[in-house]
Amino acid sequence: MAEVSDADHDVCGMSVAIDVVGGKWKLHLMWVLGAGPRRFGQIHRALTGVSEKVLTENLRQLEAAGVVHREVYPEVPPRVEYALTALGEDLARALRPLEEWGDRHRVHLMSAAS
Amino acid sequence: MAEVSDADHDVCGMSVAIDVVGGKWKLHLMWVLGAGPRRFGQIHRALTGVSEKVLTENLRQLEAAGVVHREVYPEVPPRVEYALTALGEDLARALRPLEEWGDRHRVHLMSAAS
Repeated sequence: MAEVSDADHDVCGMSVAIDVVGGKWKLHLMWVLGAGPRRFGQIHRALTGVSEKVLTENLRQLEAAGVVHREVYPEVPPRVEYALTALGEDLARALRPLEEWGDRHRVHLMSAAS
Repeated sequence: MAEVSDADHDVCGMSVAIDVVGGKWKLHLMWVLGAGPRRFGQIHRALTGVSEKVLTENLRQLEAAGVVHREVYPEVPPRVEYALTALGEDLARALRPLEEWGDRHRVHLMSAAS
């Protein structure tokens, strides 16, 4: 097997992470759930512009990656809550520097975007 | 003006950052350019699956955000190189913990993805 160079090794780390959080809504979702367990409706209201279908798909993908846990409470009607797992909490911590970067450069970035 | 709660303040940081790096290819691009200045062809070869059109758009968006600098060398034929700006280098550092998260959990994440 060819020697795995540092570059390949690094690519694996980032591309594995991108597979989990790449795409428009995943990072937003991590931010919403980073604030604590939320119900579908709460998440949907917090993310302006996402359809219920796309939100469901994104939540399912995060669940499949083991980052989000979906809890169904046996009530009538049943209550469903989404929360970060330990792996998800670790990811939320790893995303905090990105958020701080956004905060540090917000004025520049918002004027560049307008 | 309504009091900006911590939540709004945090959302601004993350949503501003997401506007820059959200989407499938931006994080990959940050990783490629994090290794140093690259020409268009080198970047295109490093990112399997991206079309030249989408790559051009993504580079332009990163350039507009001030994260990437495009240098045209007056040679025949002209040589064009893309490199991270100081703002881009700061972003690359902010993304390093995400990459480390991917490395830490690579075995789990790759088996969850398969």
